[in-house]
Amino acid sequence: MKRVMLRVAYEGTHYHGWQIQPGNVVTVEGVLNRTLSGLTGEEVQVIGASRTDAGVHALGNVAVFDTESHIPGEKFSYALNQRLPEDIVVQESREVPGDFHPRYQKCRKTYEYTILNRRFPLPEYRNTAMFYYGGLDVEKMSRAGKAFVGEWDFAGFCSAGAQVQTTVRKIYDLQVERAGELVRIRVEGNGFLYNMVRIIAGTLLEVGKGKIPPERMGEIIIAKDRSLAGPTAPAKGLRLVEIRYNAFPLASAQPFPNIAE
Amino acid sequence: MKRVMLRVAYEGTHYHGWQIQPGNVVTVEGVLNRTLSGLTGEEVQVIGASRTDAGVHALGNVAVFDTESHIPGEKFSYALNQRLPEDIVVQESREVPGDFHPRYQKCRKTYEYTILNRRFPLPEYRNTAMFYYGGLDVEKMSRAGKAFVGEWDFAGFCSAGAQVQTTVRKIYDLQVERAGELVRIRVEGNGFLYNMVRIIAGTLLEVGKGKIPPERMGEIIIAKDRSLAGPTAPAKGLRLVEIRYNAFPLASAQPFPNIAE
Repeated sequence: MKRVMLRVAYEGTHYHGWQIQPGNVVTVEGVLNRTLSGLTGEEVQVIGASRTDAGVHALGNVAVFDTESHIPGEKFSYALNQRLPEDIVVQESREVPGDFHPRYQKCRKTYEYTILNRRFPLPEYRNTAMFYYGGLDVEKMSRAGKAFVGEWDFAGFCSAGAQVQTTVRKIYDLQVERAGELVRIRVEGNGFLYNMVRIIAGTLLEVGKGKIPPERMGEIIIAKDRSLAGPTAPAKGLRLVEIRYNAFPLASAQPFPNIAE
Repeated sequence: MKRVMLRVAYEGTHYHGWQIQPGNVVTVEGVLNRTLSGLTGEEVQVIGASRTDAGVHALGNVAVFDTESHIPGEKFSYALNQRLPEDIVVQESREVPGDFHPRYQKCRKTYEYTILNRRFPLPEYRNTAMFYYGGLDVEKMSRAGKAFVGEWDFAGFCSAGAQVQTTVRKIYDLQVERAGELVRIRVEGNGFLYNMVRIIAGTLLEVGKGKIPPERMGEIIIAKDRSLAGPTAPAKGLRLVEIRYNAFPLASAQPFPNIAE
């Protein structure tokens, strides 16, 4: 028996999120389980690090599974990519210690939110970026974004419904950058509440439009009042970029995808 | 009666190309005709500049149509985008002289061919870039690309089947550049033969792989022998970027899309 870790990229457009659900809906977890079971002849069930929502994308979500298969850990990526649909691609596979659990181990997660900011939408970005045609003051967004860095109670940046022990999270870094007609919000933290990155993005958009002054961001965070933050930005602009484990340097194995920046 | 020009962006993945065809197939031209007819109450037929193939994309293909509609020329973009599917977006509309014909007027066309060059594919690029995992010597590709610049008989860079008066075409510029894990071939000319850009891309890929020395490109062009050039690269990597008319400065009206470069 061995435990194998997968780093998985997917475009979430055609999936009802990561997590298997009751009823006849297609999920990333479900497709991975079925494909792995077909490959190994075992009944495989993956454990995922982040249960991303419907329409949310990933460059490097992490999952593990246990298997008796003789396929070497690092060969699973190739074998799986032969069988997976084109919108799910395993970026890396390798054997990990049997007690490695992708949700309970300490880690840093990086998410990116992408806004296509121009006069008209572009077809190629219809599922992978939020479209906004008006002016956006990226310098103000960037300044406001710095207020999130640190350890805070993010109760005001969380959608109802999730059961969590604490709403305190630590943000290591938040960057807002313009690359041509794309505006990207990149945030790195030790974990995120339900819809937290999408609410941060929606709030920074209000700052970019001039509706919230960047100086007010600190008091909005400490107020812990969902109604003071901006709306939840659409799922399609959100991308889970990578998960780095403190005890287990994952990302160093393969350089981070460097796409046209 | 007035003539209206459209600059049209589309992702070609779900279309059997631009041109209306016999049988029950979906084409960009067909969708535009149906949408314009619904909008104006007339039987509208567009005339397109470039009849792109199935799977080929566009940022700025050009089409014109005649209408008695009272909608001002520049408002058609907004009215059409309300009704078009998300994978076709009009970027600009305006009234043009009644004798303006997008195929017979002299113009410069710019195409781009995109290669995603990394270890594993990325789901978000599955329909909009060719994937290649091996090493590519972009400097050699760039050097070989310079041989195409000038006026040449491109009979060796053309798929059979098209009826043309001459296979002579003029290339104004050809650039090969790497941006992170994307390699882009951008070519500007006064017109292109059937599959010409895809054969140029396939040939430059052979150069990048080290199979054709860049010094041989000139003799391969003048040999006019299709079997000496490389294979036709897949449609999904090809993008019609813009069409500029000499007599009619089109692109100046709106800046060229500037995406993450």
